[in-house]
Amino acid sequence: MSKKNVYMDHGATTPVRQEALEAMLPFFTELYGNPSSLHAQGRDVRKAFEEARRITAASLGAEPDEIYFTSGGTESNNIALRGAAKKQGSGHIITSSIEHHAVLDVCKDLEKQGFTVTYLPVDQFGLVSLEDVEASIKPDTFMISVMAANNEVGTVQPVSEIGELAAKHGILFHTDAVQVVGQIPLNLKELNVDFLSLSAHKFNGPKGIGALYKRKGVKIDPLYHGGGQERKLRPGTENVPGVVGLSKALELAVGELPQKADALEKLRDRLIEGLMEIDDVLLNGHREKRLPGNINVSFQYIEGESVLLSLDLQGVAASSGSACSSGSLDPSHVLSAIGLDHQTAHGSIRFSLGRGNTVEDIDYVLDIMPPIVERLRQMSPVRKEGG
Amino acid sequence: MSKKNVYMDHGATTPVRQEALEAMLPFFTELYGNPSSLHAQGRDVRKAFEEARRITAASLGAEPDEIYFTSGGTESNNIALRGAAKKQGSGHIITSSIEHHAVLDVCKDLEKQGFTVTYLPVDQFGLVSLEDVEASIKPDTFMISVMAANNEVGTVQPVSEIGELAAKHGILFHTDAVQVVGQIPLNLKELNVDFLSLSAHKFNGPKGIGALYKRKGVKIDPLYHGGGQERKLRPGTENVPGVVGLSKALELAVGELPQKADALEKLRDRLIEGLMEIDDVLLNGHREKRLPGNINVSFQYIEGESVLLSLDLQGVAASSGSACSSGSLDPSHVLSAIGLDHQTAHGSIRFSLGRGNTVEDIDYVLDIMPPIVERLRQMSPVRKEGG
Repeated sequence: MSKKNVYMDHGATTPVRQEALEAMLPFFTELYGNPSSLHAQGRDVRKAFEEARRITAASLGAEPDEIYFTSGGTESNNIALRGAAKKQGSGHIITSSIEHHAVLDVCKDLEKQGFTVTYLPVDQFGLVSLEDVEASIKPDTFMISVMAANNEVGTVQPVSEIGELAAKHGILFHTDAVQVVGQIPLNLKELNVDFLSLSAHKFNGPKGIGALYKRKGVKIDPLYHGGGQERKLRPGTENVPGVVGLSKALELAVGELPQKADALEKLRDRLIEGLMEIDDVLLNGHREKRLPGNINVSFQYIEGESVLLSLDLQGVAASSGSACSSGSLDPSHVLSAIGLDHQTAHGSIRFSLGRGNTVEDIDYVLDIMPPIVERLRQMSPVRKEGG
Repeated sequence: MSKKNVYMDHGATTPVRQEALEAMLPFFTELYGNPSSLHAQGRDVRKAFEEARRITAASLGAEPDEIYFTSGGTESNNIALRGAAKKQGSGHIITSSIEHHAVLDVCKDLEKQGFTVTYLPVDQFGLVSLEDVEASIKPDTFMISVMAANNEVGTVQPVSEIGELAAKHGILFHTDAVQVVGQIPLNLKELNVDFLSLSAHKFNGPKGIGALYKRKGVKIDPLYHGGGQERKLRPGTENVPGVVGLSKALELAVGELPQKADALEKLRDRLIEGLMEIDDVLLNGHREKRLPGNINVSFQYIEGESVLLSLDLQGVAASSGSACSSGSLDPSHVLSAIGLDHQTAHGSIRFSLGRGNTVEDIDYVLDIMPPIVERLRQMSPVRKEGG
């Protein structure tokens, strides 16, 4: 069996699809004007830019003036949470204990500024409970932020139901949908959210560009000041090629749903079932309420990092923890929150499937995995003690 | 004389040069990994990314760990000023009255948060005086921010001398060098600055990417939280193609100095001298301490916007005020600060020259300009009263 190149880290980032890159190219060298300029070069670019906004909005079931382009998911999350906090001045925020650091660490910083925060627990599958959300609401709660799906274990949260609860209590609701947009059908006309964050590089668009959906009429304070771009919420000369690439990738990704999701789910389930045949392997996250491309498993008695390196040597790209916090020795806060002990958390690996992955990729991984696990377990001191 | 396409709005933005675009391309579709990922795809990208940081630093006379990549000049300015303010908690800031809105409006917002700000006046040429800077220093002054050169009238400030003053008093010094980097030779080893902001799209790099230089050892608080990218000062998955494009464009632009600046100055002076032959035209800004590509003139008795439209119809792209605040009816705060009355300010036009502009471009503008001015003045009610 010859070495293959198998990329299964689409949760970390994805390649830009050819159609998106081609859509971007003219905006580097030909249609390069500043969209704020009044001359023909500027006006032509403004027109294309606003068309990209229209496409982005339509792909999400939103209105164009509800879309604010940002530099990515991290900035979208920061603008939503900090912008609402800045406008509010003080009060209480509810979030979950398994959010991405771009929500969790913002909340911790807001605590330093005098805000109070409830970090909701999750069950063993990574699910937030609606009862917990409702029980946490205080008179001064102004924001609930719960991610649409978790980046590590793939658990999909009951976003619409949480949003309904928030609306009933007159509380703003934000969801970090970075892992969901382009992966699961989603319509903002039906979701009860006030803010939604997305990032282009997670759905085969370019890095360095994202968007924040903000429901019409919802008011927050800007964090940055400068020119009047993005209706003053996100100033700075617009990243026109980035926005065009985002809109093209989003339009295509959404157009390919739900077929693409079904296909990914089949691949995912084939990989999960194959991996579970290895001894002492646990599936992390929820079996059904799960991102179509996410597989997260713990191999008992061995280090996830060692598995990763062995996979890497055989051409397979996967991840342990999220790429954003690689290098850290702490076990993932997500795996701790779903109740994994330290050792099991450290033996976990995420495979995240996406565009381009095939049955052959899955079978290649299933072929090389058992000997990798076997070899590492033979070298493992934990295994010797345990077994 | 046939219509030409003449782009003279390089102060607003520039086309991406071919070498920069070509350097970027592999990072969209082949080297697409997340630089934080541990697998080969991630490691290869990390290597290229840090090489781009090294090139960026070397081009500025800085160390690689003094460079923080951002989404552009606006974000760099916000991080420097707000980050220092957040760390400081309270105190006094000195800036000039002709800063870009990405500094000026940040200062106004910080005033709302309890900070005090001195907005230094400028002389009729747009120069800040060192005496004014020193006289404004208070015991609680923690930051001076003066732009390296003005985006509208092109006046180049005595940055090194202001920096020396700041250092003498133990005050941080930030300069918005968005209009200067790649235009004038600059060496951070010799400039006495703690922070410097730059933006790639002003020197034939891509939009949506910039950098903040922060002198080693200077501490500020981050504004956004998320992953640990850019040593936690600017989290979010790195815009790898953008950074590669920035570094390539910067390396080439700096390598072409000072010859390029000399050539631009010749073109600039030819345009200034030609325009001054038209009756009732004033040069705004300083005759010598001026960006090599900047021409800003006021045509008495007529509206700058009308001149712009006439130029546009004949294929010439220029600007009135800065592109960032176009659409506003207020006269430019810069032109007001140098003492222009309302009417004169409204008759001003900026031509900003850059890569690709030729003597033929200059002569084309000098050919079409007198009849445009003549025709508009004939239609002008102000002219009828005045003349």
